[in-house]
Amino acid sequence: MFFLRRKKKIENINKREDNKIVKIGIDLMGGDYAPVSTMEGVLLALYDLKDLHLKITFYNKIDYQKLIHNFINKLPKRSKIYNYFNKNLETDILKRIEFIPCSNYISMSDKPVNILKNRDNTLVKVFELLRDKVVDGVLYAGNTGAFLETSILVVGRLNGVKRPALLTVLPFNKPVLLLDSGANAECKPEYLLQFSVMASIYYKKIISNSLPKLGLLNIGTEDIKGNLLTKESNKLISNYVNINNNLFEYVGFVEPYDVVNSKVDIVVADGFSGNIMLKSFESLGEYVFNFIRKEFSLNIFNKAIGLLSRRIFRRIKSYFDYSEYGGALMIGLNGVSVKTHGRANYRAIKNSINFTYKLIVNDINSVILKELENIKNITLSF
Amino acid sequence: MFFLRRKKKIENINKREDNKIVKIGIDLMGGDYAPVSTMEGVLLALYDLKDLHLKITFYNKIDYQKLIHNFINKLPKRSKIYNYFNKNLETDILKRIEFIPCSNYISMSDKPVNILKNRDNTLVKVFELLRDKVVDGVLYAGNTGAFLETSILVVGRLNGVKRPALLTVLPFNKPVLLLDSGANAECKPEYLLQFSVMASIYYKKIISNSLPKLGLLNIGTEDIKGNLLTKESNKLISNYVNINNNLFEYVGFVEPYDVVNSKVDIVVADGFSGNIMLKSFESLGEYVFNFIRKEFSLNIFNKAIGLLSRRIFRRIKSYFDYSEYGGALMIGLNGVSVKTHGRANYRAIKNSINFTYKLIVNDINSVILKELENIKNITLSF
Repeated sequence: MFFLRRKKKIENINKREDNKIVKIGIDLMGGDYAPVSTMEGVLLALYDLKDLHLKITFYNKIDYQKLIHNFINKLPKRSKIYNYFNKNLETDILKRIEFIPCSNYISMSDKPVNILKNRDNTLVKVFELLRDKVVDGVLYAGNTGAFLETSILVVGRLNGVKRPALLTVLPFNKPVLLLDSGANAECKPEYLLQFSVMASIYYKKIISNSLPKLGLLNIGTEDIKGNLLTKESNKLISNYVNINNNLFEYVGFVEPYDVVNSKVDIVVADGFSGNIMLKSFESLGEYVFNFIRKEFSLNIFNKAIGLLSRRIFRRIKSYFDYSEYGGALMIGLNGVSVKTHGRANYRAIKNSINFTYKLIVNDINSVILKELENIKNITLSF
Repeated sequence: MFFLRRKKKIENINKREDNKIVKIGIDLMGGDYAPVSTMEGVLLALYDLKDLHLKITFYNKIDYQKLIHNFINKLPKRSKIYNYFNKNLETDILKRIEFIPCSNYISMSDKPVNILKNRDNTLVKVFELLRDKVVDGVLYAGNTGAFLETSILVVGRLNGVKRPALLTVLPFNKPVLLLDSGANAECKPEYLLQFSVMASIYYKKIISNSLPKLGLLNIGTEDIKGNLLTKESNKLISNYVNINNNLFEYVGFVEPYDVVNSKVDIVVADGFSGNIMLKSFESLGEYVFNFIRKEFSLNIFNKAIGLLSRRIFRRIKSYFDYSEYGGALMIGLNGVSVKTHGRANYRAIKNSINFTYKLIVNDINSVILKELENIKNITLSF
């Protein structure tokens, strides 16, 4: 799977004013390039964020010390970062990591059902740390199915949340939040109302303090268009907006075309159609780029122009590069739980740790808790 | 809406062996460039296909004779086609068209509900010709909502068909048929089984005589993935394949990535998620091309390379050009009913007439009728 991501540097991270440390749990074994890239991202993040502490679950046959030393040896000698690691590895970096051995780990192809059978694995263990409040958040780069299942079962839902859902940022000219991008294949109108509320709170806390425009994914924009779920959800969300219009501006139904053109800041969907849209975007983006690459290597003339265009295409591709992007948040859980791409390289891991850090510092769960209390009594019959 | 279409010439049209003429009804007023482009496409098709007869519904304030003469005057003088029209306009071309005046027509923004209130409009009229067997098929380039509604209500379903559905060809390296691409927002497993049967018959009659690979659109490929509809439909289609494996090879669940990479020849979906996938492909394709165009005009250097690459990009774009493509078939109706793109230019109209012609000549409805009789007794409890 290829995540189509607009290059978007994680903005200035609001550091905690109370000087409390931020604790994040990471499964060292998650992702295609684990454990090497995970370890590299971890060390870069610790270098950047001095109040970051990590609890790292790892498969006990892995020699993590060797991974650390390999990383340091790869750094350019005489660089500032090389010097820092040489001088402060024992006195700072290693003091801020705790390594937790496990007798098992989850591979990309493991079925979610098998994960909880033997709980002494790196994935379950890291979510148990979150459940027990040993860490404030978890980052995982591995198997999405395993992530969804384990995070919900081990960490549990935030009080009042009917269905936690997967929030993804679609990297168009203006980023668009998609909720749910795949956690709940079967939805009810009240879930979609909760998704609207949670995504808007996320938007205000993390993206911008302005009122987000919110749309409901549909196959047409007239009221009569769509299926039972979209029609009923449209009524329910409209009812909600009549009572509280401080959280988002509801623009009604939107189609994929409106999403691509950032007509809205947030698009709400059931996890089935949200996932179909996300994966259609990703796979078509990959297809078009491959197609162009093939055309530019068709003959010598095309190859020559291809060489000249290389800088331009590199720039274009960087806009669609997932590794600059933080990851997807499992929103509605009793703790911050972030999934980054399975193909995450060290830079993606580092950025995802920054992103998880930012989510923790901004504590969106307390705002969600409060607002969900307010919508308890809004139903279709309102 | 931008239809992402791989350039695909309509293949050699199987002419009728029995020398029967083929009668097609066309609403001259449908489409963004109607009536000019529609008329041009019509005349080109009549020039190409000598056994084609057309019944054309038009808004009675339109001067169709002027449109015809404008077309002829635009043709390059001394060309073969100019000569033909000059010589045979009265004796051949006009003898094969009948113009039917109406006091009204449907615009791109008309709501489907209003169409049947005043039935003396070009759209209802042309479908009445199909219902009354005055024509063998209808081509329409206008408003999709109006097309779906009117074709079902006026023409009616083929005996045994639960839901007619919109069949679209996705123009990837190897074309993939999508059914349903948007006619039925709410579906049941038995509809999806019928879609599988109808799409396979279409494939064998129109695309290739080999056994098509057929997949069911889902958000994962394991059996436990998806919503109730995909899980139940998966069981039902598997049951069917146990009885009859001559129509298609069932590969189970597929994701958008598999569609883009032509892992299947046919993808079956409910009209909601099928439409979301189709529109996501279309709008992302448009987005990426616009993005590239912008980057190539960023500065003088980029513009220069852009000029050099123009030929390559023109070729790439031609692969994604809807106007080379025939149109979407409303399958399961009691007559051939084709919808082409609202932005159809004269070439698209001509190709769509060829496509409609081919569908009529191949008479897929009689095969569908027979096979639906066979699956009547297949249910989930089988």
